Amino acid sequence: VTDLYWPGDERADDLMTPRAWLRAMVAVEQAWLDTLADAGIAPASTPLDGLVEVDEVAAGAESGGNPVIGLVTLLRQRAEGPAASWVHRGLTSQDVVDTALMLCLRDASKRLRAELRAQVRTLTAMADTHRDTITTGRTLTQPAVPTTFGLKAAAWLTCVLDAAQRIATVTFPAQIGGAAGTLSAASTLAAAPAAVLDLVAGTAERLGLAAASPWHTSRGPVTAIGDALGACTDAWGKIATDVLTLSRPEIAEIAEPAGRGSSSTMPHKRNPVLSTLVRRAAITAPPLVGTLHYAAALAEDERATGPWHAEWSTLALLGRRTVVAASQTTELLAGLHIDTDRMAATARTRWADLTAERDAIAAFAASADSAGSASSAGIADDDYLGVTGPLIDAALLRAATWLEDSP
Amino acid sequence: VTDLYWPGDERADDLMTPRAWLRAMVAVEQAWLDTLADAGIAPASTPLDGLVEVDEVAAGAESGGNPVIGLVTLLRQRAEGPAASWVHRGLTSQDVVDTALMLCLRDASKRLRAELRAQVRTLTAMADTHRDTITTGRTLTQPAVPTTFGLKAAAWLTCVLDAAQRIATVTFPAQIGGAAGTLSAASTLAAAPAAVLDLVAGTAERLGLAAASPWHTSRGPVTAIGDALGACTDAWGKIATDVLTLSRPEIAEIAEPAGRGSSSTMPHKRNPVLSTLVRRAAITAPPLVGTLHYAAALAEDERATGPWHAEWSTLALLGRRTVVAASQTTELLAGLHIDTDRMAATARTRWADLTAERDAIAAFAASADSAGSASSAGIADDDYLGVTGPLIDAALLRAATWLEDSP
Amino acid sequence: VTDLYWPGDERADDLMTPRAWLRAMVAVEQAWLDTLADAGIAPASTPLDGLVEVDEVAAGAESGGNPVIGLVTLLRQRAEGPAASWVHRGLTSQDVVDTALMLCLRDASKRLRAELRAQVRTLTAMADTHRDTITTGRTLTQPAVPTTFGLKAAAWLTCVLDAAQRIATVTFPAQIGGAAGTLSAASTLAAAPAAVLDLVAGTAERLGLAAASPWHTSRGPVTAIGDALGACTDAWGKIATDVLTLSRPEIAEIAEPAGRGSSSTMPHKRNPVLSTLVRRAAITAPPLVGTLHYAAALAEDERATGPWHAEWSTLALLGRRTVVAASQTTELLAGLHIDTDRMAATARTRWADLTAERDAIAAFAASADSAGSASSAGIADDDYLGVTGPLIDAALLRAATWLEDSP
Amino acid sequence: VTDLYWPGDERADDLMTPRAWLRAMVAVEQAWLDTLADAGIAPASTPLDGLVEVDEVAAGAESGGNPVIGLVTLLRQRAEGPAASWVHRGLTSQDVVDTALMLCLRDASKRLRAELRAQVRTLTAMADTHRDTITTGRTLTQPAVPTTFGLKAAAWLTCVLDAAQRIATVTFPAQIGGAAGTLSAASTLAAAPAAVLDLVAGTAERLGLAAASPWHTSRGPVTAIGDALGACTDAWGKIATDVLTLSRPEIAEIAEPAGRGSSSTMPHKRNPVLSTLVRRAAITAPPLVGTLHYAAALAEDERATGPWHAEWSTLALLGRRTVVAASQTTELLAGLHIDTDRMAATARTRWADLTAERDAIAAFAASADSAGSASSAGIADDDYLGVTGPLIDAALLRAATWLEDSP
Repeated sequence: VTDLYWPGDERADDLMTPRAWLRAMVAVEQAWLDTLADAGIAPASTPLDGLVEVDEVAAGAESGGNPVIGLVTLLRQRAEGPAASWVHRGLTSQDVVDTALMLCLRDASKRLRAELRAQVRTLTAMADTHRDTITTGRTLTQPAVPTTFGLKAAAWLTCVLDAAQRIATVTFPAQIGGAAGTLSAASTLAAAPAAVLDLVAGTAERLGLAAASPWHTSRGPVTAIGDALGACTDAWGKIATDVLTLSRPEIAEIAEPAGRGSSSTMPHKRNPVLSTLVRRAAITAPPLVGTLHYAAALAEDERATGPWHAEWSTLALLGRRTVVAASQTTELLAGLHIDTDRMAATARTRWADLTAERDAIAAFAASADSAGSASSAGIADDDYLGVTGPLIDAALLRAATWLEDSP
Repeated sequence: VTDLYWPGDERADDLMTPRAWLRAMVAVEQAWLDTLADAGIAPASTPLDGLVEVDEVAAGAESGGNPVIGLVTLLRQRAEGPAASWVHRGLTSQDVVDTALMLCLRDASKRLRAELRAQVRTLTAMADTHRDTITTGRTLTQPAVPTTFGLKAAAWLTCVLDAAQRIATVTFPAQIGGAAGTLSAASTLAAAPAAVLDLVAGTAERLGLAAASPWHTSRGPVTAIGDALGACTDAWGKIATDVLTLSRPEIAEIAEPAGRGSSSTMPHKRNPVLSTLVRRAAITAPPLVGTLHYAAALAEDERATGPWHAEWSTLALLGRRTVVAASQTTELLAGLHIDTDRMAATARTRWADLTAERDAIAAFAASADSAGSASSAGIADDDYLGVTGPLIDAALLRAATWLEDSP
Repeated sequence: VTDLYWPGDERADDLMTPRAWLRAMVAVEQAWLDTLADAGIAPASTPLDGLVEVDEVAAGAESGGNPVIGLVTLLRQRAEGPAASWVHRGLTSQDVVDTALMLCLRDASKRLRAELRAQVRTLTAMADTHRDTITTGRTLTQPAVPTTFGLKAAAWLTCVLDAAQRIATVTFPAQIGGAAGTLSAASTLAAAPAAVLDLVAGTAERLGLAAASPWHTSRGPVTAIGDALGACTDAWGKIATDVLTLSRPEIAEIAEPAGRGSSSTMPHKRNPVLSTLVRRAAITAPPLVGTLHYAAALAEDERATGPWHAEWSTLALLGRRTVVAASQTTELLAGLHIDTDRMAATARTRWADLTAERDAIAAFAASADSAGSASSAGIADDDYLGVTGPLIDAALLRAATWLEDSP
Repeated sequence: VTDLYWPGDERADDLMTPRAWLRAMVAVEQAWLDTLADAGIAPASTPLDGLVEVDEVAAGAESGGNPVIGLVTLLRQRAEGPAASWVHRGLTSQDVVDTALMLCLRDASKRLRAELRAQVRTLTAMADTHRDTITTGRTLTQPAVPTTFGLKAAAWLTCVLDAAQRIATVTFPAQIGGAAGTLSAASTLAAAPAAVLDLVAGTAERLGLAAASPWHTSRGPVTAIGDALGACTDAWGKIATDVLTLSRPEIAEIAEPAGRGSSSTMPHKRNPVLSTLVRRAAITAPPLVGTLHYAAALAEDERATGPWHAEWSTLALLGRRTVVAASQTTELLAGLHIDTDRMAATARTRWADLTAERDAIAAFAASADSAGSASSAGIADDDYLGVTGPLIDAALLRAATWLEDSP
C-alpha cells in the first residue's frame, strides 16, 4: 500500500511502515525472551508471532499511550509453552518502542547507503567524463565565469559524500532500561549487576544494534539520525534544484531521464517529475529534523509527556521519505541527459562576459609593479577554467576512498 | 485503519485519509462534469465511480507527479454514456488536487468547530463553577499570588476562543484554473468569458466551496488554514501542559479523567495519556505550519516544482492530527477531576507568600503622600483575588457571543 | 546602526530596535502612571525619562530574567516629585514587556501597511498595463499555455492582497494583568473592580492599543501577528522567486531596477540583489513563525519559563526583517523592467506547443457527439488566452476595494 | 553592547558579533594577501586595517548584496604600499564571507568546548557524589520506580557528552574558490595548478582552518555545525526542563544557585532564571537549525539567491545564543542546590508504589515454573535500585575518556 499523498512512496517498500515497526517490536521481545532463556532465567524460549495484526494493536494504542501494552497481551496469549508468560518481563514499553524504531531506522540506513553508493558511482563517472565539458558558471542566476560540467558534477558529488559521511557516523543503539532506566525489574531476575548488563548486551547483539546505557530522555541518538537524514535530503534537494533550473527549455543544458512526466493534455510537455518530487522531500524534511530537536530538548524526567510520542511518526515520515528521495535521485542521476553542445554554445555566446574577470585580473597583474606580474604572464591565454581539473580529481579521490571504506 | 505511529488516530474517522481525498477528487470531477452538462456543453452527465481503489491510483501517481492523471483514466473507463469522455475536460491536475484538499479540510474544520463548541461549553461551565475556588497563581514555576481556578479555566477558554476565531476566518476556495490559471481549455468549451466564469462559480457552488480566481501559486488560502490549525494545537498544547503540571502527584490539583493510562507493570500509576497525546500534537504542528509557509514562499511560475507537492501530506497530517487532538482535548476537559480541597490547602500553606505583594503595595499606598492612599485604604483585607470575577465574566461573555454567532 | 548580518537592515529605521522597545516600555510605564494620577490614585504624574540607556538596562536584564526590573529602578531614580515612587505600582514585568512589544509591532505594521499599499498600486497598474502582453505560462518549469504578463502581475497582486488581509485582521492588545493576571496589586489601589478595569482600559487607550483581558499565557495574539508577518514574506518570496527566474539571461523577460548588484570583478554582471535579499527573508521567516507557535503551545501556568522569553527576539527579528523585505519589494516592483518584446518572442517560438492543449480540446469538443460541440465551435481561432482579462479585472476590483477600505 | 532582547547576551563577549565578523573578514583578506606575497605573486605584504568601522561597511552592504565589496574598497584605500592594490585579487565575496564565518564559528566552538568540559566535570562529580542518593524516578510525570540522583546526573552527563561528541566532529573549512568555485582568477596569478592549490592551502593554514575544495553551494559543513549547535541546546534544554520541574516548591528536590531571580514585588520568590533562559535558547534553536538545512537544500547553481544570505544571521544568532546558554548551564550546574533529604522523604512517602513493579516481577519469577525462579530468589529484598551504580560508572568512564581525549 503506497501513500496517495506522497507519490513514489512505494519505492521505500516496507521500510518504516507500521507493519515493519510492529514486526520490529516483536523481534525486540523475541530477542529479550531468548536472552532470558539462554541465561537460564526464563524457561526455554518460544517463537513469538510475527504476524500480529497492525490494526488490532493500533486500535488499542491510545489507551496506554503506546502500542506495546496491547502487543504484549497478544504475544503472551499466542505464544506456547511456559515461556509465554515471560514475554516482556523486565522491559518497559519505551524499551520496545525505541529499540524497534532503531531496527527500522537501521534497515532504512542500509538502503540509503546502497543508494548513496550508486549515486557516488554515477557522479564519479559523470565528473570524470565531463572534466573538459565547458559550461557556464552561474552565480546569483547570472553567468559569471566558465566552468566545466565535470566540476558541477563534482560539487554534487561533494554534497552526496557529505551526506554519506553523516549517515556513516550515526549509530543505532538498543534501548533497554526498564521503567525508569534503572533496569530495576531486570535486576530482580538476574543474580548480579554484571549479569543484568549481560542481558542488555546480549539482546542488543542479537538484534545487531549497539549496546548502550538507557537513553529514555537523553535523545542524542535520535537527533543524530534525524540530522543525518536531513543532510541527505539537503544534498538531493540541491541537485534537484539545479536540474530543475538547467532543464528549463530556455537553458536546456540537461534533462531528466525520459519516460516520466507526460501531461495528459499537453503532449509537448515533459515535466521534470523526479527532481520535483525530490525537491518536495527536501522542503518537508528540515521541519521534521527540527521536531526531533524539540523532542530532545523538552524530554523531561525519566520519560517525556509528548516529546517522545512526537518522535515516532516524525522518524517514520523522515526515514521513509528519505529512502524514496534517495531512490528517485539515484534514478535521476543515472539517466540524466547532458547536452554538451548546448552547454558549449551558451558559454561561447557569452564568452567575452564570462572571461572578463580573468582578463581583468591578468591585466592588473601584468601592469602591477610587482613580483607577481612575471608569473601571471606565464599563463596561457586559453586557460579560463582555473583548476577545475585538480578540483575534480580531489572529489574523485574522496569518492574512491569512501567507496573503499564503506562496503 | 488507524495509524500505529499516532495513537488515537482513529478519532479522526475518515477525515483527511487517502480514501477521503480520492473521493473528494471524484466529487470535484463530478461537479465539473455536471456543470458542463447543465450548461449544455457536455452531454447529460453520468455518475462517476466513487469507489475508486486508492491503491491503484496511488501506485500510478509518481509517473505524472500526482494522482489525477491515473484517476481520470479510470473514471473515463468506468463511466457510462457519452459524458464519460468529457470527464476532466477543461481542468488541470492541480485544480482537482487542490479543490479536493479543500473539501477534505472543510470537512475537518466542521468537526473542529464542533469540538471547539464542546470545549467552549465545558470551559464556560468550569470557569463559572470555580469562580471562587481559590488556588495558587504560579509564575516561572513559583507560587506568586492567589487566583481562582475559575480564572485559570477562563484563560484556557480564551486560548480556545482565540483558536476558534482563527478557524472561523478561514475560507475554502475551489481551484479551477486550467493548465496555467487562464482557464484556456474551458474557454474553448464555452461561448463567452462570463460563461466560463459561470462554470467555475457553478462548480464551486455544487461543492459548497468559495468561488475564487485561480490560486495555483498564490497560496495564501493554504497558509491561512495551516496557521489556524496551528493556533488550535497551540491552545490545546497550553492546556495539556497545565494539566500535566497540575496533575503531578506532588501538586495533584487536577487529574485526567479515569479509565486510561494504566501501566501493565506499575499498578499505582495513572498516566496522563490524553494530555500527553495532545501535547505531542502541539509539538509536531508548528513545523508543519512552517512547511506550508515555505511552500507558499517558494511557489514559482504558474505551478511549483516541489512546494506544491509538499503541501499534500503536510495538510493531511496537520488536518488529521488536529482533529485527533481536538477530540482528545474535549474528552480531557469534560472529565477533568478538579480537587478544590487540595487547591485551597496548597494556597493556604503559602498564604503569607502569596499575599506579600498585595500587602506590600497596600502598605506603600497607605504610606505614600498621595491622593491614592485614601482609596487604597478602602480595600477589604481579605480581597486578594483582584478582579478575577469580572475577568471571568468577560471571558464568559465572549464565549456566549461566540456560541451564538457560530452555529 | 544597521545589522552587518542583514544587508538592507537600515530600511527599517528604528522599528523594533532595542532602543525602540525600551522607549516603548517607558511609554507603557508613563501611560500607567498618568492613568493612576488621573484616577486620583497616584499624585500628579511626572514625565519619565525616555532617554534611558539601552546598554545599562540590557546589562542588568539577566539577573531578573527580563529588562523591566532594572528599568523601573532607573525610572524611579530619575523621575521627579512624589509620583516617582508610583512608577510601575500595580504592574508586573510581563505587562511592560508585552505591551511594549505590541507598541513596536503596531508601529511596524503601520509601515507594512504603507508598503503594501504602494505595492498594490504598482501591481494594479502593472496588471492593467500588461493585460494584453502575451507571455509564456510555465508549469513545473515547462512552457504550458499562453498567458499574459498582466495575469502574472495579477497573481502577484493576489498574493500581496492575501498578505494585506492577514495584516489587517491582527490586533495589538495591551497586556495589563499584574503578577498572575488577577490585577491583584492594582485592585489594592482602586476602590472597586470597575475602577480597576477602567485603569486597564484607560492605559490601553492612551497607548492606542486594544484593551484586553490578561493574556500572559494565552498567546493567540502573538501567533496571529507572527502568522500575518509570515504571510507577507511568503507573498514577497513568491514574487522574488519569479523575478529571479524570469531575469535569468536565458529567459530575460524581466529585470530588476538598475543601480544595484554590480560586481567588483565581473563588469558585465547585474545581480538581482533585491529579489535575492527578499527571498532571504522568505526563507528565514517560517521557522520564526513556528517558534511563536511553540512558545504559545508550551506556555505553562501563569507565566512561562522560556516560551515567553523566546518570543522577544523572535518578534523583533521577524518584525524588522518583514519591514526590510517590504521596502525592498516595493522598490523592486516599482522599478521592474518588463521586456514585452522578449516575452512575445519566446511565446511565439513555442506557439505550437503552447496552444496544443486548447487545440486538442477544441478538436475533442468538435468531434464529440454532444450538445457541447456546437458551442465550442463558436470560439475564435486566435483566442488562446482564456479569461485572462476578466481574471485580471477581478484582482483589480479586489485591490481597489482594499485600497478604499484600508486608509 | 548586549542585546536587550536576549538577557544574558553579554556572556558571549565578542563572539559572533558584527565586529568580530568584520575583523574576521579582514583577517581573511590579510591571510590571502600574505600568502600571495610569500609566493612571490604580490609585492611584500602590508598590514590591513583591523579597525574598520562596522557601521560604514554595513551601510553599504545592500547595494552589492554583501558587505565585502565595500570592505575591500576601504582596505585598499587605507593600506600602504604597492600591496594595497592586491587586496582581494583572486577572491570572491563569498570566499571572504564564508571563511570569516568559519573563523567566528571556530572561536565560538572553542568557548563551547571549554564550557562543555566544565559541565562534564561538574556532572561527573555530581553523579559520583549522589550514586546512593535515593530519589523518585518519574515517567509521564508520575512516580514510577526508585532511582538515584546520581543516575539522573549521569543521564544529564550523557546528554552533554552526546553534544560534545557532535561538536568534536565538526570541521571549519576555509572557502577559497573565486567567482564560481574554479579559482579562475587565482589561476591567472600563479604559474601552475599546484601553485594555485598551494595558495588555498597556505591561506587556510594561516587562518587555522581546514583546507577544502570550494563549497559555495555544497553546504554540508554549515549544516553540520548548525546541527551540532542544536545538539548542545537540546542537551541543556533537557537539563533546564528537569531543573524547572524539580525546583517547583511542591517538589523542591533541587534549586538554582542563589543570587538571581529575585522579584521586585514578591520578596518570597526566587525565580529559576538560569534554567528559564537556557530553555529559551533550546526553544529557539531548532528552527534556526532547520533554516540552515533549507539554505543547503535550496542552494542553486554556483551561488545561491537567498539561501546563502539567510545563513549569515542564522549562524550568528545560533552561535552566539549557544555560547550564552552554555555559560548559563555551566553556572547553573556548578551552583545547583541538591536537597537529598527532600528526595529521600518524597521517595519514602511513596515507597510501596515505587517498589510495586519490582515486587510484582519478583513474585512472578518466584511463582513461575521455570529455571529463572531460583536465580531471582537470590536478589536481596532491599535492592530496588537496579544497576544504577554500574550505569553511573559507565557514564563516568565515558566522561573520563572524553576529557582525556579532548584537550
